[in-house]
Amino acid sequence: MGFFRAKPLVYKPIQAVDLGPHSEEFYLQANVKAPRMAGILVKIFNWVLEFPLLGSLLMYILKGNNLIHKLITNAELEESPLFVPLHPFEETKEKEVKCLDSDLSPPEKVHLAKECLPNIISSEKRPSFFRWTIMDYHRAYTSGDVTPLMVAERFIAAVSKSSKPPLHMSFFIDSKDEDILRQALESTLRYQRGEPISVLDGVLVAIKDEIDCLPYPTTGGTKWLHKQRPCTNDACCVKRLRLCGAVIVGKTNMHELGSGTSGINPHYGAARNPYNPSKIAGGSSSGSAAVVSAGLCPVTLGVDGGGSVRMPAALCGIVGLKPTFGRIPHSGVLPLNWTVGMVGILAGNVEDALIVYAAISGEIPSHKPSNIPIHLPLLSLTKPLSNIKLAKYGKWFDDCSDDVRSCCSQALKRLQENYGWKTIEVTIPEIEVMRLAHYLTIGSECSTSLDSYKEKNFAELGWDARVALNIYAAFSSKEYLKAQKIRNRQLQFHKKILEVADVIVSPTVGVTAYSIQDDALKTGELDYVNGAALVRYSIAGNFLGLPAVTVPIGYDKLGLPIGLQFIGRPWSEATIIHLAFAMQAICETEHRKPEVFYNLLSKD
Amino acid sequence: MGFFRAKPLVYKPIQAVDLGPHSEEFYLQANVKAPRMAGILVKIFNWVLEFPLLGSLLMYILKGNNLIHKLITNAELEESPLFVPLHPFEETKEKEVKCLDSDLSPPEKVHLAKECLPNIISSEKRPSFFRWTIMDYHRAYTSGDVTPLMVAERFIAAVSKSSKPPLHMSFFIDSKDEDILRQALESTLRYQRGEPISVLDGVLVAIKDEIDCLPYPTTGGTKWLHKQRPCTNDACCVKRLRLCGAVIVGKTNMHELGSGTSGINPHYGAARNPYNPSKIAGGSSSGSAAVVSAGLCPVTLGVDGGGSVRMPAALCGIVGLKPTFGRIPHSGVLPLNWTVGMVGILAGNVEDALIVYAAISGEIPSHKPSNIPIHLPLLSLTKPLSNIKLAKYGKWFDDCSDDVRSCCSQALKRLQENYGWKTIEVTIPEIEVMRLAHYLTIGSECSTSLDSYKEKNFAELGWDARVALNIYAAFSSKEYLKAQKIRNRQLQFHKKILEVADVIVSPTVGVTAYSIQDDALKTGELDYVNGAALVRYSIAGNFLGLPAVTVPIGYDKLGLPIGLQFIGRPWSEATIIHLAFAMQAICETEHRKPEVFYNLLSKD
Repeated sequence: MGFFRAKPLVYKPIQAVDLGPHSEEFYLQANVKAPRMAGILVKIFNWVLEFPLLGSLLMYILKGNNLIHKLITNAELEESPLFVPLHPFEETKEKEVKCLDSDLSPPEKVHLAKECLPNIISSEKRPSFFRWTIMDYHRAYTSGDVTPLMVAERFIAAVSKSSKPPLHMSFFIDSKDEDILRQALESTLRYQRGEPISVLDGVLVAIKDEIDCLPYPTTGGTKWLHKQRPCTNDACCVKRLRLCGAVIVGKTNMHELGSGTSGINPHYGAARNPYNPSKIAGGSSSGSAAVVSAGLCPVTLGVDGGGSVRMPAALCGIVGLKPTFGRIPHSGVLPLNWTVGMVGILAGNVEDALIVYAAISGEIPSHKPSNIPIHLPLLSLTKPLSNIKLAKYGKWFDDCSDDVRSCCSQALKRLQENYGWKTIEVTIPEIEVMRLAHYLTIGSECSTSLDSYKEKNFAELGWDARVALNIYAAFSSKEYLKAQKIRNRQLQFHKKILEVADVIVSPTVGVTAYSIQDDALKTGELDYVNGAALVRYSIAGNFLGLPAVTVPIGYDKLGLPIGLQFIGRPWSEATIIHLAFAMQAICETEHRKPEVFYNLLSKD
Repeated sequence: MGFFRAKPLVYKPIQAVDLGPHSEEFYLQANVKAPRMAGILVKIFNWVLEFPLLGSLLMYILKGNNLIHKLITNAELEESPLFVPLHPFEETKEKEVKCLDSDLSPPEKVHLAKECLPNIISSEKRPSFFRWTIMDYHRAYTSGDVTPLMVAERFIAAVSKSSKPPLHMSFFIDSKDEDILRQALESTLRYQRGEPISVLDGVLVAIKDEIDCLPYPTTGGTKWLHKQRPCTNDACCVKRLRLCGAVIVGKTNMHELGSGTSGINPHYGAARNPYNPSKIAGGSSSGSAAVVSAGLCPVTLGVDGGGSVRMPAALCGIVGLKPTFGRIPHSGVLPLNWTVGMVGILAGNVEDALIVYAAISGEIPSHKPSNIPIHLPLLSLTKPLSNIKLAKYGKWFDDCSDDVRSCCSQALKRLQENYGWKTIEVTIPEIEVMRLAHYLTIGSECSTSLDSYKEKNFAELGWDARVALNIYAAFSSKEYLKAQKIRNRQLQFHKKILEVADVIVSPTVGVTAYSIQDDALKTGELDYVNGAALVRYSIAGNFLGLPAVTVPIGYDKLGLPIGLQFIGRPWSEATIIHLAFAMQAICETEHRKPEVFYNLLSKD
């Protein structure tokens, strides 16, 4: 009790913290002290962690080295804990939106979303590289040029080909051809009868293997969880997609239990990056990002507990949307955590993210918060909104690789030039503290959630996930509660900033996709340094439940994608989607084709 | 990791649990394995607890012996965590109530509460022993027979006398004569001008030393907390009482940091039981209960985090009311916990509890839940409501001393006979699990809350509180989260039962006040066996946030008071107050005068 305790860090009262550009608040760079480990090293490390007493001592040192003791465990702060980032709905200041009743049927919502889309872009105006949109598929199916069945067959062939040498793309954990063909046939018949259910009818959608979806088991990226927890029904979000006629094509690969960021799964292979298959796809929704990037589906679903949708989306050059906490029903999602994870949408284009967002949004009426209206942005506006204010925290914005920094700064400049939007310089204090508090939270919740199963199946876990769970199990209730106090504190900071700005703008990730090393393929890898850089900009979306979107804006010197992120006020998805669309309009002519890409709508 | 783990306990799905009288659910008696310790033994025990490694091992064994590992840490249960027992308001089915807007001023609320009171009882009908009510004081002040100043002077003399030998009643931690006399004079002048603010004008009210109240420091029963956290304002509930003209007479004694149940405070003395000063008053609101019992105030405020209002009220033969979580603003109360503690009211009579409940209820408008109407019971009804259904869990109801059991059973029978109310036999599963889950929760929160101060002042803590905090600090985040899962589960059980019954009825405590042993006076004592018996019936009120009231119904063979408890649906304070009043009407002629009693309104 306190033998090693130094003088505690005392956090200032919130009102004493200057959030302006000249604040004296110190920007603490993540100074992760943990060497990259893979192969035999991970095994040894885990062996020590599981060794009685020695493991506890190692944990104590690890926490200390990574400032957890100083910044959280022993820190003093006044705030009460905020356990769940559920925001009261306040009548929004959002302009130029279409307002949807949350209890409309999914096809009705999709119909209304369609009315928000910009006019059809005539084909000659299309950029040299682009991914087919939902509307492209719908128009092609309606014209009869292509049928859902034909697309399904091309999809099956492409997945089969990509998974074999030399590519070894592990997009899917499971994908049943028969089930796909049956759905595609039904959709084809509906189009033949002239009765498609919605523009999503016949559109291929893949689901992260953390979301229940029949006839598949929900593995969570493991070899055993589905045996303990059988999948007996579709998750609510999957049900809603089916109600719109979407063809569900299988369960995408993911980082095991969402416990890492690389997307290297020792059981199901690495979901490689379509822009360069020797690089990671990111994670944990790795397969969902790679599948869209490679053109196999216009849209997929993922789950974002710590950037797990936005981060792989950015690394794979696509759009990733994580709505406000509580916006999309969570029922039927593996309960790996209860207060940070959210279903999110990965799409090739902002328009498609909008359609699927409309289709699956709205809490189940019996749940709280209910009856919160869904606002959709009018992408059909002839020019984007004026007077948008973007909050930028310079030190944080710039805490990334040179390529990311210059690309994101350039994008921001173009937004200002093209639309006259203003950047407001701000200070967001204690961002690294928030990352650690989120880590304590998601770790504690994951450990508790899996506790029932873990012991029986410890030996079946990958080594990196096993280390993660051993670390998670060592957090104390005090650490958990202090983390919730930090959640309250950070929410107040963010709310103040979002009172003077419409969104916070930042890079989506601090680095571009890094290389997959051979020693990681069997054991997974521990790379907390890259991990911290990958989640650096994601945490507010999860820990504070704020909506956030990433949009691809360019490439690094190696041709790997870079994304820009907008973080909005609670329930302001319309605004961030609008901003993403405006950003996309500037960049889309520069988009490049991935090395691995399939064009399912053309015959070529 | 898991070296000692046995096969985990798997909790049944809720819908598979039979809540009926013939349920096969096992009633687990609290089988606390910890010998009573006081004096040098507590010091040695604490020394071992604070010893590195050895302390951890002892903790592990303690948790195991007390079934925490089996019932919580390693158990499997499906429910999501419920962190805060904040209930949505549903339009109530309560009958015959007066409905108050929550944003009325406190004097307006008191005025409306007055209209709910029964007609003035003519003095000849009064029982041989009774405590003066607020209305008695108000009438006496209005008539001019007695002034608030006279009562204040008698109060000061009585407190002075009682605190000296041979009584050694440690009612107060601090009580400033000058401050009392000043307030009493102001009130006297208002009555002389014929302008009393409300019926509470000039009424003496004492405040537990866990609630901010100027000009006093808020010690929380310690010798140091007030130095770290100065009291700079009245708590909201105190402000509201002042707005009604109440005379605040000081800060009542309490168990140090609310960390125990005996009310023996090593720094400020034992708040002894007025019915027998060699017995405990209970705790942690020990002084608040004893003061009312001894006739010094008609009403006091306490804080109830684990029965801390109801339990000492029952032991001291008075009424204790703990409203629904969120009903009374918590601002200005020591943040010893965030999800179980609530301001409560201790009073000599149900009518007085009603008046003060009305005065201080209603959340601060800016807080959630706001605008929930306050329902007051019409105690003025000529006969009590019919068709009341009381849920009784026989095995739990009977898990108490013989005297308590027969007295409570008798009271229940009299309710049935007098009013035709029905008892419904039910089963409330896993009550002991709930007690342990609550213990993990309040301990974790208390440890976190005090963490900022504790280290600096560890040496200044009493030994029992020091042991408690050492134990609390050892809980893991997993234990905290599992406890919150149990909270969700228990709330569902209780809600189901409260769908078929208006209230749950039980004894308030399992034993009557036990003896204060000399060895405990300096060190405090650890008596987890008695502690478990004292809180056995209290937990749902705190952990689930349900409103609950205790009313005195009789005495054991030694003449020590016994209380009966009603637990209601969320926001149904009107119903439980109504029931308490009906119970009081049956029992009040049998009430006995405490050994230590002061009559401040009569000259005798």
